[in-house]
Amino acid sequence: MADLYDLTDDKPKEECGLFGIYGHALDVANITYYGLYALQHRGQESAGIAISNGHRFSLHKNMGLVAEVFNEEILSSMKGHIAIGHVRYSTTGSSLAVNAQPLNFRYLKGLISLAHNGNLTNANEIRHRLGVNGSVFQTTTDSEVIVNLIARYGQGSIEEALMKTIIDIKGAYSLLVMTENQLIGVRDPHGVRPLCIGKLGDAYILTSESCALDTVGADFIRDVEPGEIVIINEKGLTSILTRKNPRQAFCVFEFVYLARPDSNFAGKNVTQVRREMGRQLARECPIEADIVIPVPDSGIAAALGYAEESGIPYMEGLMKNRYIGRTFIQPHQKMREIAVRLKLNPIREILEGKRVVMVDDSIVRGTTSRQLVQMLRNTGAKEVYLLVSSPPVNYPCYYGIDTSERNQLIAAKHSLEEIKEYIGADGLHYISLEGMLKATGLPGDSFCAACFSGDYAIPIPEETGKYSIEDGGEDYGYHL
Amino acid sequence: MADLYDLTDDKPKEECGLFGIYGHALDVANITYYGLYALQHRGQESAGIAISNGHRFSLHKNMGLVAEVFNEEILSSMKGHIAIGHVRYSTTGSSLAVNAQPLNFRYLKGLISLAHNGNLTNANEIRHRLGVNGSVFQTTTDSEVIVNLIARYGQGSIEEALMKTIIDIKGAYSLLVMTENQLIGVRDPHGVRPLCIGKLGDAYILTSESCALDTVGADFIRDVEPGEIVIINEKGLTSILTRKNPRQAFCVFEFVYLARPDSNFAGKNVTQVRREMGRQLARECPIEADIVIPVPDSGIAAALGYAEESGIPYMEGLMKNRYIGRTFIQPHQKMREIAVRLKLNPIREILEGKRVVMVDDSIVRGTTSRQLVQMLRNTGAKEVYLLVSSPPVNYPCYYGIDTSERNQLIAAKHSLEEIKEYIGADGLHYISLEGMLKATGLPGDSFCAACFSGDYAIPIPEETGKYSIEDGGEDYGYHL
Amino acid sequence: MADLYDLTDDKPKEECGLFGIYGHALDVANITYYGLYALQHRGQESAGIAISNGHRFSLHKNMGLVAEVFNEEILSSMKGHIAIGHVRYSTTGSSLAVNAQPLNFRYLKGLISLAHNGNLTNANEIRHRLGVNGSVFQTTTDSEVIVNLIARYGQGSIEEALMKTIIDIKGAYSLLVMTENQLIGVRDPHGVRPLCIGKLGDAYILTSESCALDTVGADFIRDVEPGEIVIINEKGLTSILTRKNPRQAFCVFEFVYLARPDSNFAGKNVTQVRREMGRQLARECPIEADIVIPVPDSGIAAALGYAEESGIPYMEGLMKNRYIGRTFIQPHQKMREIAVRLKLNPIREILEGKRVVMVDDSIVRGTTSRQLVQMLRNTGAKEVYLLVSSPPVNYPCYYGIDTSERNQLIAAKHSLEEIKEYIGADGLHYISLEGMLKATGLPGDSFCAACFSGDYAIPIPEETGKYSIEDGGEDYGYHL
Amino acid sequence: MADLYDLTDDKPKEECGLFGIYGHALDVANITYYGLYALQHRGQESAGIAISNGHRFSLHKNMGLVAEVFNEEILSSMKGHIAIGHVRYSTTGSSLAVNAQPLNFRYLKGLISLAHNGNLTNANEIRHRLGVNGSVFQTTTDSEVIVNLIARYGQGSIEEALMKTIIDIKGAYSLLVMTENQLIGVRDPHGVRPLCIGKLGDAYILTSESCALDTVGADFIRDVEPGEIVIINEKGLTSILTRKNPRQAFCVFEFVYLARPDSNFAGKNVTQVRREMGRQLARECPIEADIVIPVPDSGIAAALGYAEESGIPYMEGLMKNRYIGRTFIQPHQKMREIAVRLKLNPIREILEGKRVVMVDDSIVRGTTSRQLVQMLRNTGAKEVYLLVSSPPVNYPCYYGIDTSERNQLIAAKHSLEEIKEYIGADGLHYISLEGMLKATGLPGDSFCAACFSGDYAIPIPEETGKYSIEDGGEDYGYHL
Repeated sequence: MADLYDLTDDKPKEECGLFGIYGHALDVANITYYGLYALQHRGQESAGIAISNGHRFSLHKNMGLVAEVFNEEILSSMKGHIAIGHVRYSTTGSSLAVNAQPLNFRYLKGLISLAHNGNLTNANEIRHRLGVNGSVFQTTTDSEVIVNLIARYGQGSIEEALMKTIIDIKGAYSLLVMTENQLIGVRDPHGVRPLCIGKLGDAYILTSESCALDTVGADFIRDVEPGEIVIINEKGLTSILTRKNPRQAFCVFEFVYLARPDSNFAGKNVTQVRREMGRQLARECPIEADIVIPVPDSGIAAALGYAEESGIPYMEGLMKNRYIGRTFIQPHQKMREIAVRLKLNPIREILEGKRVVMVDDSIVRGTTSRQLVQMLRNTGAKEVYLLVSSPPVNYPCYYGIDTSERNQLIAAKHSLEEIKEYIGADGLHYISLEGMLKATGLPGDSFCAACFSGDYAIPIPEETGKYSIEDGGEDYGYHL
Repeated sequence: MADLYDLTDDKPKEECGLFGIYGHALDVANITYYGLYALQHRGQESAGIAISNGHRFSLHKNMGLVAEVFNEEILSSMKGHIAIGHVRYSTTGSSLAVNAQPLNFRYLKGLISLAHNGNLTNANEIRHRLGVNGSVFQTTTDSEVIVNLIARYGQGSIEEALMKTIIDIKGAYSLLVMTENQLIGVRDPHGVRPLCIGKLGDAYILTSESCALDTVGADFIRDVEPGEIVIINEKGLTSILTRKNPRQAFCVFEFVYLARPDSNFAGKNVTQVRREMGRQLARECPIEADIVIPVPDSGIAAALGYAEESGIPYMEGLMKNRYIGRTFIQPHQKMREIAVRLKLNPIREILEGKRVVMVDDSIVRGTTSRQLVQMLRNTGAKEVYLLVSSPPVNYPCYYGIDTSERNQLIAAKHSLEEIKEYIGADGLHYISLEGMLKATGLPGDSFCAACFSGDYAIPIPEETGKYSIEDGGEDYGYHL
Repeated sequence: MADLYDLTDDKPKEECGLFGIYGHALDVANITYYGLYALQHRGQESAGIAISNGHRFSLHKNMGLVAEVFNEEILSSMKGHIAIGHVRYSTTGSSLAVNAQPLNFRYLKGLISLAHNGNLTNANEIRHRLGVNGSVFQTTTDSEVIVNLIARYGQGSIEEALMKTIIDIKGAYSLLVMTENQLIGVRDPHGVRPLCIGKLGDAYILTSESCALDTVGADFIRDVEPGEIVIINEKGLTSILTRKNPRQAFCVFEFVYLARPDSNFAGKNVTQVRREMGRQLARECPIEADIVIPVPDSGIAAALGYAEESGIPYMEGLMKNRYIGRTFIQPHQKMREIAVRLKLNPIREILEGKRVVMVDDSIVRGTTSRQLVQMLRNTGAKEVYLLVSSPPVNYPCYYGIDTSERNQLIAAKHSLEEIKEYIGADGLHYISLEGMLKATGLPGDSFCAACFSGDYAIPIPEETGKYSIEDGGEDYGYHL
Repeated sequence: MADLYDLTDDKPKEECGLFGIYGHALDVANITYYGLYALQHRGQESAGIAISNGHRFSLHKNMGLVAEVFNEEILSSMKGHIAIGHVRYSTTGSSLAVNAQPLNFRYLKGLISLAHNGNLTNANEIRHRLGVNGSVFQTTTDSEVIVNLIARYGQGSIEEALMKTIIDIKGAYSLLVMTENQLIGVRDPHGVRPLCIGKLGDAYILTSESCALDTVGADFIRDVEPGEIVIINEKGLTSILTRKNPRQAFCVFEFVYLARPDSNFAGKNVTQVRREMGRQLARECPIEADIVIPVPDSGIAAALGYAEESGIPYMEGLMKNRYIGRTFIQPHQKMREIAVRLKLNPIREILEGKRVVMVDDSIVRGTTSRQLVQMLRNTGAKEVYLLVSSPPVNYPCYYGIDTSERNQLIAAKHSLEEIKEYIGADGLHYISLEGMLKATGLPGDSFCAACFSGDYAIPIPEETGKYSIEDGGEDYGYHL
């Protein structure tokens, strides 16, 4: 589970979470608020909710956590029967309010609001094409590109416009679209990002993870299919399947780290998959050790699985400070070692003289792992083995996950032996790609595992990289 | 002078102030900040500055006064050689950050930023036409319409695009446009809103009022002509005159109330014009009285003129509390009378037993006038005469000044005698339209005085009224 | 009138304003709020209100203006029938919340709250004496010393305790004291700081200036006498005169600059006294000139008087920006000249080619005067004469007014001729001490004019200076 | 571990955490900041740090978390060689800034700063005695009573004053006292609250829990003894043992719930003690079940112990939302059930059809337990057994822990069977008092377990209850 208060500097970052609801006689603003609360791990940079009352939209969004952005006064002022909400992840430095979603627009046929999770791979090309015809852009977000495409194709129905739009755009996208009287969900043909359908009484919900359905007391119905457009209005739910049989490519990192442990995808529970990854890891990499400890919190499920399979006792050898927040003052150079100990404190009584297996879910840059291994040794651990429940991250993600630049990925430039040396462990073992996929209980070829394998299901543009950084920068300078 | 701390509830509201500068080797962000400071009376709702460094734009804007929106850290982070800044007026209730200006966009040819003072009369019609071609809109501002038009005509040079745009748009507009390497000023063919040119060393400045030039130590060069496009770039200043001899129609209310007393328009100093209005009023409406007092602060110049011409002593009989701010708690019903006394306190020692001429610059709804007259009587004034240095406001403004709805204009529905009764004065006298225009020292037919005369220089659309209120509302619900 | 938005860097600073009310069936919190609003010019650093409901006290105070510190929710939560409120002035750098008043305490006989305007001259000596007996102090304020003395003498009635306390303390003090069921006002034997009594229906009010009575709709009854203790409780108002015939020494600077123009002291209206000072100045210092202009706002009344007496036309040659607030970014060195022009802009059309008499109420350091004279010259004034409606400030004040250190007082170290040279005026004239006192219409020996004459009515301790700076500093380090 | 983001509504509240350091050539402000960060679980209401540089004190404190109260600018402005810091717990409604600690005072011998963890039982009596001699009080805190006593005994050395003070005061107190040149720690004769000594190079540290020593990289030296005064100054550390052999009565709830799992007391590690409590619980209450799940986070260690001893698999069946913060909007009545699910979501795949042992560390009111049991059943658990690793809480604490009023303690008024019915579990079992004490590995008679047994080591005043609520209330109305 992505955790703000965890050592997330060294973890991939989810880009967004979506929650939409269509339902009369419900307080859709409040329900969306709680839905976003449950999805907070998918993005801590900004939060927003747009509401339609059939005639007008209201919108509130801002930088910050859901609980910071909204208060009772704001929520109670937002009346209507359709809502879409969005949380966006936190990057360092370029936190821009203008990029907060949903985005509201007026086009020829009326009002439209859009929330997006994912990343287009041909946004630049489309943006240029639209510009030739006179479109203007206020942001560098993909979402604004999508809205302009919809408007360009907007002489007919919104469904037609969406179908034409989907033909043009490439990449990963789960979308929520709201018009005055419809809630629409779209999932890209490969199904890279998740989106599922729930019901709360007569009301329909579309959201990124099933945990949000549980939270608001709704029932899970099914996942939105790859390439499916789901339209909800007064007549109920209609489905359009836009493409037949593309290769499905659901992001396996949702299972490894990104999703909440209590969510399900394709019928599989995340924490149970993680525990099975731990068991699989124990089968692949048995170690002679006295105790198994997790790197809290994201390594807990896999560590429990490792302990279960190996029979080695599970202990909480690293204690996490639950109050590490975002405004934390970084220690000066000479108190550098305090930085990690503020978050995780090793317990001597548990570790001293022990051969320790430490289980983590993934390693990106390796810096935190190195500090933790050192800390365990200083506290008296006799031997330290680092076991990782996902394979080495070798390639960047172009579909909406921020894995750092490739040159920061330790596994992309160093051998296993070199990494072990760097980290200072007595042993370093990753789960195999096959083992990880097998642990999901789903067909291996239904996943995108490009960050591990380099096998990209959707073509990557030559330019690669993030055009938004090279192109105009900082979203044309907005820091509203 | 428009004064936040004055009794401005009963005054017309200016819509915006503009300040732009093109100059290498200058801190253009700081200079623009001080320029906007000098124009704060033209708008207290929001403030913003956009900067170009030749390649990228930076932008900062927010709700609030200039001094609240900016701090040293923000300003010092904004580097470049071109800047445009904007202040926007404050309305009650619908203060929307999304409407803050400048607006930054990317179009086919690059980046563009726009700041606008005025009001288009055919924005709805153009918006619809653009929508048919696929344009989307995030706000209901005229400024977004103008930017989309520019983009639609944007295959060639920016000058061409602007010239085509000017043919399409009707209404009052002074514009500042910034591209990566140019600062452009545009004034509508009737010259309704002001715009002038200054120089600070080698740098050019375009701004709404000359007081902003004084403040930053720049020299006044000349007013921008009605219908003129002024282009400033590395080659210096170029001028394009787009139309020959339209009827000039400069807003006379700038002289009456809106502009700062230390600004000049068409070579005439505002405070001197106001003083002359007071003298003219004394000639037109001589009163037997003991003292002349102003309604502070906006009636001071006219009251001094009245006293000078009439020979009646000038006294400050109403003392203003200089600390009345925006967050003031309104008194409850039974302390209603406190509301005015918090702002203006009558001085018994000056007023008791006196026949008082009270001079104000304008009356819109009359509610404050009524309270002031009552207060003077309660303090012992024997007789109270209200003299107004502008004619009755009978018609709404469609060119960017908020004069309230017509049914709130007391003079639109009531005779002079009825107003006198309502206000409770022993006498009520307005200056004549001719007298007011004469006092400016400029040709009477060079002004727009439609709010007094109903003679609109620019055609008003059938729909009239503010489409933005009828059309989607609250700018599609943004309250970012 | 002290004006936050004026050029007050170069003016003495008032220390505090007081407002107390005793009245059943009134919203005493709201009335006190409006009363403090009217006294905001006496202190902009902090504001506070304490309320008694007969059993308990509630208290709210904080740094900031009255309108910033309070909101409707806070005020409506403060219920009771007695209230005392306080505003405190703003110094640079050492703005400390712990010094905000009123101060609430529990002593042997119950609860007590205190608000103080003035300065003790023997606070250090008493503090030491109390410390020997075990008193502890959280602040260096005189107010805490007074409260501890009251508690030390607190075995009997509060009146007895106050009478004993008054024998011990020396200096200037107007006090408001609240117990569970009494509102008490105390004025020092010399009556240095003002305090007056008003009635609002059956309710009694005690406040620093009569303008606060006007504002809340109360009637002025009388000034509290020097050395008088006024006790208000359910039996009505009782008076105790603690001393017979000390030399009265009311601060003349209240008339010159500190008080609001619409307040009265000893039956004299402040703005009329200032106008008479202007007339007297014209009699003492006649100048051949074309126009008289004030330094706004505090010089206006005297300038009007000068113009009236001299027959020279009164013009507003310096235009003040009404939006200069506290968060203003100071211009960098090379834009230094902007600093003054942001606040005051000279109008060329009025000044050019003229011989100008500029009237100010007082000069402390002379720096602003110098800048203004220079600015007038640059704008084309032919001759500039600076006339001041108070004598040279030669001595520091030990009774509660911050006049800067003596070595910053330009008149304390330089001859009139030297000051004229420094300021760059063609002529510099101060009113005479006798002339100023005569203009008040009151006996000259009833004033403290020590800052002009050095004749201190109350002995100054040898140490002089501000012990609070030498003694522990920064109030023992509070910056809550 | 006390956890802000946990279901702490139903848990006892720790009152305070202390951290003090004496050390030249160290950044004592920063180290104290990190020390308080590690102690944040002991209090989330307010935080404060006082620093001595040998001559003066600086102090910063405010409502909020450590990371909210301090920033780099504040910390870097606080220079000196001695610091004491304090965190205070959060109650609902009466969060008062005036009660934030440390408290700084000046007394006869100089400056003194005080931070206190615990609760006096005779504060009222002493406060009255001091009042007779003229003391005044600004708060109802025990800390202010202690400071006044020290000042009253303050003619000699601070050690003498403290020794006399300790004779007077009864109750639980761990104190940090700072003078200009000394850091002093005091622990009450029964040692109810913890306090320990650490070293960081040459610098000495006194703090509530050893985890704070780990965090700043210091070594644990020893606990401060009950009744010991520890004086640290330039000569090093001196110890005064004030009483011989009182009954030691360390709060056993520190082991059960309050302290951080990675702290040690009397040489015992907290998380290991908790795990042993879980094992003991398994021995005392064996259950036929399929899985053991904890109530996160505080029940985790005991649940692991239970699982280990019983051999039943440990699963994380309740998933905690890590983003539940303090500004959370409470669901309306009809969405009541959302409130718990927002914090804890049961995982169907783990629970369905299972016999579940749910382990919690303590039950106070039982409301949350009831909701959790219901939630597990709704999710498909076949049987639910609630096992508690501490005995029933029958009595309130008078020594500084907020356990709610006695009439809210479910165990004080209901039989085990009734509680089981109320909670709706198939079984409810508490550990025995003997079992819990045995699990600590320390002599049972060295603890205070009064909340379980009613056996109060320190006499409780007749009045009992919280005088501060009855006596003047709201700390004399401060809400600064």
